[in-house]
Amino acid sequence: MHVMASIFSRIIAGQIPGDFIFREPGWVALLDIRPTSAGHALLIPLVEVPLLADLPPATLADAGRLLARLTRAIKQVTGCPAVNVVLNDGPLAGQEVPHVHWHVVPRWPDDGRGYRFAPQAGTALGPLASSLATAWDKLDNDQ
Amino acid sequence: MHVMASIFSRIIAGQIPGDFIFREPGWVALLDIRPTSAGHALLIPLVEVPLLADLPPATLADAGRLLARLTRAIKQVTGCPAVNVVLNDGPLAGQEVPHVHWHVVPRWPDDGRGYRFAPQAGTALGPLASSLATAWDKLDNDQ
Repeated sequence: MHVMASIFSRIIAGQIPGDFIFREPGWVALLDIRPTSAGHALLIPLVEVPLLADLPPATLADAGRLLARLTRAIKQVTGCPAVNVVLNDGPLAGQEVPHVHWHVVPRWPDDGRGYRFAPQAGTALGPLASSLATAWDKLDNDQ
Repeated sequence: MHVMASIFSRIIAGQIPGDFIFREPGWVALLDIRPTSAGHALLIPLVEVPLLADLPPATLADAGRLLARLTRAIKQVTGCPAVNVVLNDGPLAGQEVPHVHWHVVPRWPDDGRGYRFAPQAGTALGPLASSLATAWDKLDNDQ
């Protein structure tokens, strides 16, 4: 079976040009080719898997540190006062390439982009939290 | 100087009730009290700092693994096919509590929530990527 490499894997391999910010072990960062604001960057694992939970623990271990440092670099260079860090995990969440990628999106006053969450009433939280706690405990600690 | 603990620190300390999913070393997860969809959860570090880049490396090292596992638990329990994982890093990005918190938001077909990014034209990517690469290299590798 031949599976076409994702556009990100092809950029990482140098088959398609990309605007790289860094290459670190396990991850690269580059600018989104269709930025929603200047400095809109992507953090992408070399491992081509669609979902965050598909990544190996060693790769996941570096994600937080790299995202934190990337937010700093983007704020320094663009001067933006805030960023959104967004992972769309699945096509129905807006994921357009089936290869994990974190968006870091610079934000500006009155840019109208939102990301405040509209509350939705109706579900009792206690029983749901209990179900989630049980599911959490059953999931492999290594993953 | 007296600094009021954040609402999250007070929930973690048991001064305010919360619907916990887990307490792990360095982090807790609980349900958002104003869910934007059923299962909307927050991953919160015990360290009360406003920005992702303020967190110590040891705390950041667990973020990816815990987020991955939390997405699994939420998909299992709610049956949702996708989630958004969102950090609002700064008030202008929609951050309402100055204490780092990751949102994990269940998504459903036709829920109208979006999160596709509207592209914005105009900025040359190459020079910007170079500036970001330079800033990246100058930032402390430990942070």
